[in-house]
Amino acid sequence: MTGSREVAVALLHYPVVDRQGAVVTTAVTNLDVHDIARSAHTYGLSKFFVVHPVAAQRELVLRIRTHWVDGSGARRIPDRKPAMEIVRIVSSLDDVMADVGRNAELWATSAAPGGTLDVGHAREALGAAGPPVVILFGTGWGLAPEVHERSAHRLVGIRSPRVDGYNHLSVRAAAAITFDRLLGDSAV
Amino acid sequence: MTGSREVAVALLHYPVVDRQGAVVTTAVTNLDVHDIARSAHTYGLSKFFVVHPVAAQRELVLRIRTHWVDGSGARRIPDRKPAMEIVRIVSSLDDVMADVGRNAELWATSAAPGGTLDVGHAREALGAAGPPVVILFGTGWGLAPEVHERSAHRLVGIRSPRVDGYNHLSVRAAAAITFDRLLGDSAV
Repeated sequence: MTGSREVAVALLHYPVVDRQGAVVTTAVTNLDVHDIARSAHTYGLSKFFVVHPVAAQRELVLRIRTHWVDGSGARRIPDRKPAMEIVRIVSSLDDVMADVGRNAELWATSAAPGGTLDVGHAREALGAAGPPVVILFGTGWGLAPEVHERSAHRLVGIRSPRVDGYNHLSVRAAAAITFDRLLGDSAV
Repeated sequence: MTGSREVAVALLHYPVVDRQGAVVTTAVTNLDVHDIARSAHTYGLSKFFVVHPVAAQRELVLRIRTHWVDGSGARRIPDRKPAMEIVRIVSSLDDVMADVGRNAELWATSAAPGGTLDVGHAREALGAAGPPVVILFGTGWGLAPEVHERSAHRLVGIRSPRVDGYNHLSVRAAAAITFDRLLGDSAV
């Protein structure tokens, strides 16, 4: 099922927390841009916002995008182009809202307990009519508390089936799994 | 549900196909090792085989593994260590079988049509008693035909819900989604 609502994704580099819980700004990882763009486009998301407050980091992402949309990358691997075309480079969550719509619902994610929107209800909500949804992922050790406070929902986290609960997915893997759970073919 | 059978994963750099379908050897991607190790360990897989016929490439993966298991990486990000500890570096699929067991079942994956083992039956098979299973992923444009011929099953591919069928997940994303489908908490 592809939901009838517009669904976008945003990867925040600020405000996120570090290992100790302090609010920090992280650096851009090249493969985050590629992998999340490819996964988002495969699952029909409308846009992938890379959110970074530092101009030089935004410029880096813009160069990556341009290489794959208009440059030699687009000629070498044409399949990458439609994925990279959905990348939007912005400086804050406010910019995301300005693009997607002031009525957009922010859905936060976290590996920690505390999420209340489970997959079944999320799929139901996406299948019904409603405002755009922006799924938020944090780099580093995850989204800062202020992002959770601003969000309409927090998705139930991806739980490890392990007895010891080890759960250290990359944000690239967590995004792919989340898109598959929320927007993947329900017939599988 | 965590299956009662041992499940391992192997990432093949040979024999895989390129865009034109020719059988080639690909180079190791550092983040494949990290991301697939983290996803595999989170979902309770026993081992992650990085399969490469070239000694210098195996040496590279060994250096990455050592850095994160015994080196400064292990001190900086201790969470990475248990994931990297399941990495095994071998030169061929025969070496994988020699390690996991000659009775192991190979389950191939592909983004192309042709898979016959769906998620429901795969979960059922993993929940029952049986020999170890090794899930195979190909780098490049996927596993070569000879790998499919040698496999007991080919999993039904991850389908895009898009009307145009665009489906270009990274192997890192495809592995994460596959582990979640086959071994993820079924209560979600």
